[in-house]
Amino acid sequence: MYTILILGGGKSAIFLIDFLAESCQTKTRKLILADINLASAQQKLKNQPNTQARQLDIENMDARQSLVIEADVVISMLPAFMHPIVAKDCLEFGKHFFSASYESEQMREMKSEIEAKGLFFLNECGLDPGIDHMSAMKIINFAKSKGEEIISFKSYCGGLLAPESEDNPWKYKFTWNPRNVVLAGQGTSRYIEKGDLKFIPYHQLFNRLETIQFPELGDFDGYPNRDSLSYRSLYGLRNIDTILRGTLRRDGFCKAWNVFVQLGMCDDSFQMNLPENTTMRQLMNSFLPYNPALTVEEKLGNLIPDFDFPAWEKIQWLGFFGDELLPQTTGSPAVILQSILEKNWKLYPEDKDMIVMQHLFQIKTEEGIKEIRSSLVCFGEDATYTAMAKTVGLPLAIAVDLFLDGKIHLKGLHIPVLPEIYNPILDELSRRGIRFKEEERAI
Amino acid sequence: MYTILILGGGKSAIFLIDFLAESCQTKTRKLILADINLASAQQKLKNQPNTQARQLDIENMDARQSLVIEADVVISMLPAFMHPIVAKDCLEFGKHFFSASYESEQMREMKSEIEAKGLFFLNECGLDPGIDHMSAMKIINFAKSKGEEIISFKSYCGGLLAPESEDNPWKYKFTWNPRNVVLAGQGTSRYIEKGDLKFIPYHQLFNRLETIQFPELGDFDGYPNRDSLSYRSLYGLRNIDTILRGTLRRDGFCKAWNVFVQLGMCDDSFQMNLPENTTMRQLMNSFLPYNPALTVEEKLGNLIPDFDFPAWEKIQWLGFFGDELLPQTTGSPAVILQSILEKNWKLYPEDKDMIVMQHLFQIKTEEGIKEIRSSLVCFGEDATYTAMAKTVGLPLAIAVDLFLDGKIHLKGLHIPVLPEIYNPILDELSRRGIRFKEEERAI
Repeated sequence: MYTILILGGGKSAIFLIDFLAESCQTKTRKLILADINLASAQQKLKNQPNTQARQLDIENMDARQSLVIEADVVISMLPAFMHPIVAKDCLEFGKHFFSASYESEQMREMKSEIEAKGLFFLNECGLDPGIDHMSAMKIINFAKSKGEEIISFKSYCGGLLAPESEDNPWKYKFTWNPRNVVLAGQGTSRYIEKGDLKFIPYHQLFNRLETIQFPELGDFDGYPNRDSLSYRSLYGLRNIDTILRGTLRRDGFCKAWNVFVQLGMCDDSFQMNLPENTTMRQLMNSFLPYNPALTVEEKLGNLIPDFDFPAWEKIQWLGFFGDELLPQTTGSPAVILQSILEKNWKLYPEDKDMIVMQHLFQIKTEEGIKEIRSSLVCFGEDATYTAMAKTVGLPLAIAVDLFLDGKIHLKGLHIPVLPEIYNPILDELSRRGIRFKEEERAI
Repeated sequence: MYTILILGGGKSAIFLIDFLAESCQTKTRKLILADINLASAQQKLKNQPNTQARQLDIENMDARQSLVIEADVVISMLPAFMHPIVAKDCLEFGKHFFSASYESEQMREMKSEIEAKGLFFLNECGLDPGIDHMSAMKIINFAKSKGEEIISFKSYCGGLLAPESEDNPWKYKFTWNPRNVVLAGQGTSRYIEKGDLKFIPYHQLFNRLETIQFPELGDFDGYPNRDSLSYRSLYGLRNIDTILRGTLRRDGFCKAWNVFVQLGMCDDSFQMNLPENTTMRQLMNSFLPYNPALTVEEKLGNLIPDFDFPAWEKIQWLGFFGDELLPQTTGSPAVILQSILEKNWKLYPEDKDMIVMQHLFQIKTEEGIKEIRSSLVCFGEDATYTAMAKTVGLPLAIAVDLFLDGKIHLKGLHIPVLPEIYNPILDELSRRGIRFKEEERAI
């Protein structure tokens, strides 16, 4: 009888928990869900047989390690900084480890020890990273197996709202970590286009958009996301001429978001201490040049090139030209902006979210160059059973299930770029409605 | 007989060393100059009586502390991170401490211990910080003593070239730490104007210029520099409506520098690994959007709003449109840019530098509002006896001289904002030609 331990039963764990709890009904397994909030963990397990909720303060090393000792595989759904700590516990007590987060440098330092102990550690097995790796590698390996050469690869992903829930001008609400949304794109993004290295600083990023189309959904803004160059070695595409990974937002979002970037409102590097009665309009004014002859609206219009009505409407809808008080007056500009957005971009219980992902390949074949567009669209059910939780949690749950069923024989430190891992996971995701639509055309 | 220890005999120490070595000829004092390079230290002391050069590796704690033990006062001309370490040594062995650098948080933590031991620690006694504090506080305290109210204070400083040495289109060469010049202004600058808090992100900074005039020198670009708000409490101007501290560059410099900022070339947050044969033109191209139909010059022209000929000429003069190889191809964009600038902005031995500083006050008096413009211009003699070394080193040397002569009776942790410190220093600086010209007019 295997014991599965899930650490952290937050919002994005719901499908993971349901899948694995269900598997305990048909397979000889036990599931322990440990969370800071016992009642919430109990509620999520719904008293199903062979499941147990436990209260755990993750900083309590003794309690955490006793739980790890009880388990055969450990799934970390904790904040990213905790993964290496849990992975170290797993290494010490000889347990397998699974996460949906990026494989960190600290994780890589454990590589030879993981191998020496014959353990299986799988990271990046969620949505992005996760489904992106698996679906891209399947196409890449298939093309390579036919002797074809991939000359261009662009891949975009976004966590957005289902069209029926797009009830504000931004067509956006928070469906995952708000702080990550506010800070998205900071630093310099890098990619390669037709052999030319390209670097884009943050303040230019939201001007450098590509329109990405989903036939049934319309247009999206795609902007390059961080370090695309590292994917050349990760995906075995070392000599590729064009590689770009990007983020998707609804058409028009980026132009309005760029207003915050241009003003400096996403800066997280210093603390503001504004007077307690500061209004939204005064906050906006504090990022604009001093000019007693102009209104806030006029100064903003002068500062932002091509400030069009759709962008204007989005800023106004958030209340930036009004006299409402700020929700909070201390913290970095990014933290204060986040507090404003959280008030306005809150998911209602009945709201449905949506995940969109698209890979665009150009492949040189004997017959010429063909383009493959492979698109995934996944809708959430409501604000609890979100597409985000589904696409992050199911791949991880399926990976654990396959591993315990003895269908993955690998040992060591992995991300899901090998067929032995991604084929059965993609098959199961497809059975559950998470499947890519592939279109091919000669160009 | 007092012993003065100078730690670090770098470029900016030459006037400090000369002044204090000379004082050892007339006063019962000894000067020890400790530097990593013994020959260079010996050369600077010119075998004058009562002076000694010592070789010192500053990381060698035992050697450093033995030197501190020999001294009565210690002057740290080391890199900023070393000041707290040396200050701790001084605290341990009961020695007085002097530096021209910002009083750090670590220094402040020693405050009560410095007082308890009856020691005198003086920081920020160079040019900026240093002469700026002293000259501003003299005007502020004089106005206050007459019952006048300071309603606006703007203060600018720049380390530039004397007009006769402005022999390139930038009218600029490195007269101090090149890295600090490349990174200048990063983060969000903040100040207050007519009661409105103002925040300027880095990528807007070099658009938000004020023209600052020196009657005998012409126009300069002034841009706000970091956190001006903290000067309200430092200068006792808590309720002031307008306070801004800024940096000066020659008219036109900032518009061209802004090209690098807009491109992202000053980013120091990630490492580039460019192919070894990358040319200047290719580096420029890597920061521009991909467009096979346009030249590098055209793409740059499209990206930069109001790109005028004077800015164009400066970029071209550095070779950015040519096919010369980069001086180095690894490092952050800022490090690579610095390597290009160091090749081109090198001070020739006969070049003369120049320090410009200007305070602009608006003061409410019984007769109405008056404006005071107080300006300092100081020229260097050549690339060794620079205005930078003079204005950084002399205030510090004079402070040590006054302290050893018993003319400063203070104990504890200080910066030169008290009359007992700044009056005699400003008087001596004035005798040596470093003096402000004050103009007053009703407005």
